[in-house]
Amino acid sequence: MSEGIKIATIGGGSSYTPELVDGFIKRYDKLPVRELWLVDIEEGKHKLEIVGNLARRMVEKAGLPMKIYTTLDRREALKGADFVTTQLRVGLLDARIKDERIPLSHGMLGQETNGAGGLFKGLRTIPVILDICKDMDELCKDAWLVNFTNPVGMIMEAVNRYSGRKKAIGLCNVPIDMQKAIARMLNRPLEEVYITFGGLNHMVFVTGVYVDGRDVMEEVIDLWGNQSVKNIKGIEWNKGFLKQLGVIPCSYHRYYFMGKEYLEEAIEHYKENGTRAEKVKKIEEELFELYKDVNLKEKPKQLEQRGGAYYSDAACNLICSIYNDTRDIQVVNTVNRGVLDELEYDEVAEMNCIITKNGPVPVSVGKLPKAVNGLLQQIKSFEIAGAKAAVTGDYDKALLAMMINPLVFSQSHAITVLDELLEAHKEYLPQFYRKQ
Amino acid sequence: MSEGIKIATIGGGSSYTPELVDGFIKRYDKLPVRELWLVDIEEGKHKLEIVGNLARRMVEKAGLPMKIYTTLDRREALKGADFVTTQLRVGLLDARIKDERIPLSHGMLGQETNGAGGLFKGLRTIPVILDICKDMDELCKDAWLVNFTNPVGMIMEAVNRYSGRKKAIGLCNVPIDMQKAIARMLNRPLEEVYITFGGLNHMVFVTGVYVDGRDVMEEVIDLWGNQSVKNIKGIEWNKGFLKQLGVIPCSYHRYYFMGKEYLEEAIEHYKENGTRAEKVKKIEEELFELYKDVNLKEKPKQLEQRGGAYYSDAACNLICSIYNDTRDIQVVNTVNRGVLDELEYDEVAEMNCIITKNGPVPVSVGKLPKAVNGLLQQIKSFEIAGAKAAVTGDYDKALLAMMINPLVFSQSHAITVLDELLEAHKEYLPQFYRKQ
Amino acid sequence: MSEGIKIATIGGGSSYTPELVDGFIKRYDKLPVRELWLVDIEEGKHKLEIVGNLARRMVEKAGLPMKIYTTLDRREALKGADFVTTQLRVGLLDARIKDERIPLSHGMLGQETNGAGGLFKGLRTIPVILDICKDMDELCKDAWLVNFTNPVGMIMEAVNRYSGRKKAIGLCNVPIDMQKAIARMLNRPLEEVYITFGGLNHMVFVTGVYVDGRDVMEEVIDLWGNQSVKNIKGIEWNKGFLKQLGVIPCSYHRYYFMGKEYLEEAIEHYKENGTRAEKVKKIEEELFELYKDVNLKEKPKQLEQRGGAYYSDAACNLICSIYNDTRDIQVVNTVNRGVLDELEYDEVAEMNCIITKNGPVPVSVGKLPKAVNGLLQQIKSFEIAGAKAAVTGDYDKALLAMMINPLVFSQSHAITVLDELLEAHKEYLPQFYRKQ
Amino acid sequence: MSEGIKIATIGGGSSYTPELVDGFIKRYDKLPVRELWLVDIEEGKHKLEIVGNLARRMVEKAGLPMKIYTTLDRREALKGADFVTTQLRVGLLDARIKDERIPLSHGMLGQETNGAGGLFKGLRTIPVILDICKDMDELCKDAWLVNFTNPVGMIMEAVNRYSGRKKAIGLCNVPIDMQKAIARMLNRPLEEVYITFGGLNHMVFVTGVYVDGRDVMEEVIDLWGNQSVKNIKGIEWNKGFLKQLGVIPCSYHRYYFMGKEYLEEAIEHYKENGTRAEKVKKIEEELFELYKDVNLKEKPKQLEQRGGAYYSDAACNLICSIYNDTRDIQVVNTVNRGVLDELEYDEVAEMNCIITKNGPVPVSVGKLPKAVNGLLQQIKSFEIAGAKAAVTGDYDKALLAMMINPLVFSQSHAITVLDELLEAHKEYLPQFYRKQ
Repeated sequence: MSEGIKIATIGGGSSYTPELVDGFIKRYDKLPVRELWLVDIEEGKHKLEIVGNLARRMVEKAGLPMKIYTTLDRREALKGADFVTTQLRVGLLDARIKDERIPLSHGMLGQETNGAGGLFKGLRTIPVILDICKDMDELCKDAWLVNFTNPVGMIMEAVNRYSGRKKAIGLCNVPIDMQKAIARMLNRPLEEVYITFGGLNHMVFVTGVYVDGRDVMEEVIDLWGNQSVKNIKGIEWNKGFLKQLGVIPCSYHRYYFMGKEYLEEAIEHYKENGTRAEKVKKIEEELFELYKDVNLKEKPKQLEQRGGAYYSDAACNLICSIYNDTRDIQVVNTVNRGVLDELEYDEVAEMNCIITKNGPVPVSVGKLPKAVNGLLQQIKSFEIAGAKAAVTGDYDKALLAMMINPLVFSQSHAITVLDELLEAHKEYLPQFYRKQ
Repeated sequence: MSEGIKIATIGGGSSYTPELVDGFIKRYDKLPVRELWLVDIEEGKHKLEIVGNLARRMVEKAGLPMKIYTTLDRREALKGADFVTTQLRVGLLDARIKDERIPLSHGMLGQETNGAGGLFKGLRTIPVILDICKDMDELCKDAWLVNFTNPVGMIMEAVNRYSGRKKAIGLCNVPIDMQKAIARMLNRPLEEVYITFGGLNHMVFVTGVYVDGRDVMEEVIDLWGNQSVKNIKGIEWNKGFLKQLGVIPCSYHRYYFMGKEYLEEAIEHYKENGTRAEKVKKIEEELFELYKDVNLKEKPKQLEQRGGAYYSDAACNLICSIYNDTRDIQVVNTVNRGVLDELEYDEVAEMNCIITKNGPVPVSVGKLPKAVNGLLQQIKSFEIAGAKAAVTGDYDKALLAMMINPLVFSQSHAITVLDELLEAHKEYLPQFYRKQ
Repeated sequence: MSEGIKIATIGGGSSYTPELVDGFIKRYDKLPVRELWLVDIEEGKHKLEIVGNLARRMVEKAGLPMKIYTTLDRREALKGADFVTTQLRVGLLDARIKDERIPLSHGMLGQETNGAGGLFKGLRTIPVILDICKDMDELCKDAWLVNFTNPVGMIMEAVNRYSGRKKAIGLCNVPIDMQKAIARMLNRPLEEVYITFGGLNHMVFVTGVYVDGRDVMEEVIDLWGNQSVKNIKGIEWNKGFLKQLGVIPCSYHRYYFMGKEYLEEAIEHYKENGTRAEKVKKIEEELFELYKDVNLKEKPKQLEQRGGAYYSDAACNLICSIYNDTRDIQVVNTVNRGVLDELEYDEVAEMNCIITKNGPVPVSVGKLPKAVNGLLQQIKSFEIAGAKAAVTGDYDKALLAMMINPLVFSQSHAITVLDELLEAHKEYLPQFYRKQ
Repeated sequence: MSEGIKIATIGGGSSYTPELVDGFIKRYDKLPVRELWLVDIEEGKHKLEIVGNLARRMVEKAGLPMKIYTTLDRREALKGADFVTTQLRVGLLDARIKDERIPLSHGMLGQETNGAGGLFKGLRTIPVILDICKDMDELCKDAWLVNFTNPVGMIMEAVNRYSGRKKAIGLCNVPIDMQKAIARMLNRPLEEVYITFGGLNHMVFVTGVYVDGRDVMEEVIDLWGNQSVKNIKGIEWNKGFLKQLGVIPCSYHRYYFMGKEYLEEAIEHYKENGTRAEKVKKIEEELFELYKDVNLKEKPKQLEQRGGAYYSDAACNLICSIYNDTRDIQVVNTVNRGVLDELEYDEVAEMNCIITKNGPVPVSVGKLPKAVNGLLQQIKSFEIAGAKAAVTGDYDKALLAMMINPLVFSQSHAITVLDELLEAHKEYLPQFYRKQ
């Protein structure tokens, strides 16, 4: 990493990229990125150029010697990279629309990470990520893979099980959003609040909050009430329930503990306005209109309103800490290594880690309550089953993943939805069609 | 146990009692029961007398010196007993009707063991069972408690946690029904088939089947298809799913893996015919009409058509094996003692045990697949939360039990159903109304 | 197993064989052995013939149609066998003499199972046993391997890890001797006392004793005092220590808890009379003199005085239970399968099992006390390290096994003794000399 | 902690105190200690005054407003303290001389932490430390206890089990010495080397070493060879053994893996020069001669030659990090909280922790190899047994601790040495003489 850092960003044409560029610019002092390679596929070429040009204008305005490359040649981008970030979307937003529409049409929450929709996003994405890992072994063996493509949990479990790559980290913005919300509630700057997180991606819990060396968890549980991330409808948690639980669930837990409420709302909303994916598609189009403006030379404010804000900034922050061996605490997805007793030694967890030059090292976050262990195990086994289905292309293994997902709850619907999604995504699931 | 055995049966006025009496008569050679005390409460006095008289006629016909006592004085019955069986129903069938009707009216499966209905059956029953344990400590310290009152899992977990009684066993007829079904499929007598069971009550899995020293599990999974116990609508399991699972689920698993199917069917059925509980009530009335007949001197055939057949026979069998130290294998609910790795050392499991004079000793049944572990943990934590709510009478703890039950899936409905059931069963839940 | 049973006994020329033959004769009704193949190697041919002829006279006297074969062709003996027993001694008693003499000459207990001597017996024997397993896969795939060659623990761990053979059981007479001793103390017939054993071979503990459904462990601990198996000098256990321990150690535990006493005695004895092995050699010679007598037509009484009595009878008993699917309880060495929490799921343990047609199934024996866990882990890791050294022939791995053995306690002596034993047994350890 | 920090140091008359004072002086900027209370008992009054005066001269020379108090009134010192450090020695060095002499006279290594000597140091010290905890609960509830009195492992296990105090940390200089040695070997400044430690006090292993994000463990194992802390005779580890082990043992491991070597050397040395304790006593006397010199106004160089250097500096460092919430990594003794899989959740371990305002939080250090697990378990169970004996004064429990200690290895010697040490330390072990 001596002569400045080379970053390769797969899915570089994403609307999130300006945040990533902004993050590198802000940190240039500590993290001297000399080359940023934005990689995309043929279908994304147009967007890639728009984003690439905006990035170039941003760098120019900042007056930094950072070079922006745009390319469709992934292998060239990977060659000699120090860090590889993945923010790709196989099948683009149209695929996500199907992930949501088809389950909903059978009265089932698709849920783009830990539901039927998330399973299919995983089935489409995992083979591509494993391919990237293979290329990295060849072209940039010592580089870190920083993945923030969903479903992060399933993808990281697949990388962990089916690639030899140890240098891989999964990232999500849910923990940082919760941290900010808790600090706000306590009227404290973020760095004065010590918060422990444990669980899985989109299934993470706050297990402890400390201020001035005092455990303030009970107080925070009382305050928690109304918090939610932007892209999930806010429904208040019952305080008595939270007190009994003793930990703070994340927004995505509402899909399980308030499943009926969400389902009703989703069905109604779907009838009137289409799926969340369709809304996102519209927002994206608007963003790209903005990006085209040659006078725009910085990350536009509107990007923050898109769900998933801070993802890219979290990625920059993580990369910066690895590069500088800062040993600060961040919440990432990595191999548990015995720290969360509820999971096996080698399973991927989302938890507090210190970030060292040798990567994230998990830190004790206490025990999860027995009352949430069942759900945690269900999702972990869903991730494993999904990863296995993705690499084998075996129908029955995909059915197993569907059946054990708590949002499915029906054998007949599991089969119907599985069949329809397999058909709808045929193009992106060659592994399931190899023998036919 | 020298001068012949004394048995006390709490809930002796139950329609199941003739099977129990029949079981003792059949085994008299090996299990010389001299006194059978049938105990009931004031409201059950009439039925108790009908059943008591039938029992006396049965014994007389068999020509055995077994004395049948009927009494409302539980303590007298317990005094010096060798075995105490519990088959009581707090609030009678009318309570069960509410357990089913109220959840269903909000689109939720009540499920009389591992659902909202089961929770309330537990809340009503656990204090009574713990009271019996206290009396036993005083009046028949060395006696065994054999419980086949549902929810068996939650009740045994409560006995295990909140009474000092080690000599307590929970019984269910699901495993013996599955054993018979598998033996039938394989065209073999029961004793030639070695079957391993592991899990929780009404959440038990067949983990292995052996014939002639050969593992025939795959064959049995192929054959399994259509089996069901009588009181659960038969829906076929998908073979591909079962193969991936690698174990055979019990009938009650359908409530989770085919939840929507069951719910639709239950709602429809409920509209037309009322709940299962109402049907059972009618069957019971017919049985008691039969029992009154002074010419009836044996267990009537009709009893076998009632769900729950073989429960009582299983109890006799268990008692006989303890008494004779036979060390044969039976499937019962007892403390796991490290054998099922998925559960803690001190948690109650349903599994193969050898039955010794010192009670059941768990036998290795292999590992459960990861894919079912989440559900298992959910139900175990539900049992624990329910038991804790039952002994404390704490509203929030009852809400926790509701919220983590996989059949509930809605915070708002959890609260509504909880409130309505608490109100409906007010009379039988004094622990929740103490302070008000 | 249709046309009567074929048994192959590797090391058939052993002085123990008459007990084995006697065991088969006694059980002929239930266990119709038609062919018993005694196999040995060239060096053992003379003894093999003596033993074979005695066996033939025994069978003839019993009037049974059991054929005795003696052969040096192991593969012919294995062909189509139903059970294979192994009681071989690579390097004969002369090797054992070295196993004891060399460590003692450096002030170290050799100990023929869990000490430096046992390590070398394992290094010599494991490759042979693994070879037998390979032959069995080819020639008698469904046969059971019943091993009572020491070190049983290390050998079974090797079979478990380095052969694919699941049908393999290790046997020892220590548990049956302890059972008999305890029953005698309690003045009860063996079958009325229920005893639980848990641990490793020659490192097994009695964890519970029950009579008439009562836990009499405390009473037995009080009585235990003076018991020992014949070939270990009796030294009384301190009662206060045993009470604190809460379990009953076996005789071999004295090597660790009374190591200095044993060592002094062994060194003194060694100066005066040579090693235990040398004494055994003399006894063996006397036995073979007896065996030659053509008038001897039964197992001679003198054999019982040889340490290791009942080993062969235990083997017959085990074989008989497998054949008849009796599901009775025996204490054997098999894969733990989660029952002993102190060991991993896949590690070999010595414990209560029910013996079925599909082999032994471990039964819960409770928890071992924390105070003995360290020693247990040391020996288990010694077994694993020894097995690994045996299959790889790696010097450092053998050194690791030496260093972690609690009887060694010295790096410099570990190296010296290792080097001298490697040299002394050169002929039988080709795996360590391959590259030189 | 607003108005400057108050520290209470129990055993303040120790020869180590000047290092502690020096540590506070050096860190005054970040750690403004306003009051340092040195507490001792009547017998230590003379030394306390000498040390107190030196401390005052040191502070004066530094020109800092830190007040030094010397007192025999522990409760006054504890009142309102922010941190309490314990470096006491019940029975002074004379007791340690007996701890070493008596075992050695029976051919046994006394070992002042994890041997018979350490057991007795624990038996004498634990009641005093638990008393301090009780006083702290009353007088300075929120203060941290920082203990560097040996045996640190047994004492912290006792605090953990028998006091309610969560705010307690045990410290040792072994890890920091190893860190320095490794950094030296690698020619790197300490902060560029990332080293993971896991195990128990004086039984800790280096489990990983990283430089520039690379795992250099193999290289370090190769280099390790000759390292030792000052007060243990250097004997070289065999490289082949270390490679097989895969972790780096600490100096104290030599007592187990090179026990005979140590024993011989100790016996010889003892004959010529007396015990290590006697040598330490002489060094101490020389140090106090130095301390008396009114011209001495700083920590004398000679102190560094005393074994145990950096202990006090490590304590200052730890206190400074807690006070400032620095979240840097230090190796301390604290409750494992699931991070070391080999130990239970609630057991005390020595391992990497991040130091926060809420105390140390364990960090993943990987798995310990199976080959050392037995020894680890032995020492952990020894610590637990010793702690239990200390609080109960039960002879049999003390015998259990002796018997399971791997340095004892003899029942008869265990009893003799136990009896002689109980007699020798009678004055300091009232709990064992209560009933007599």
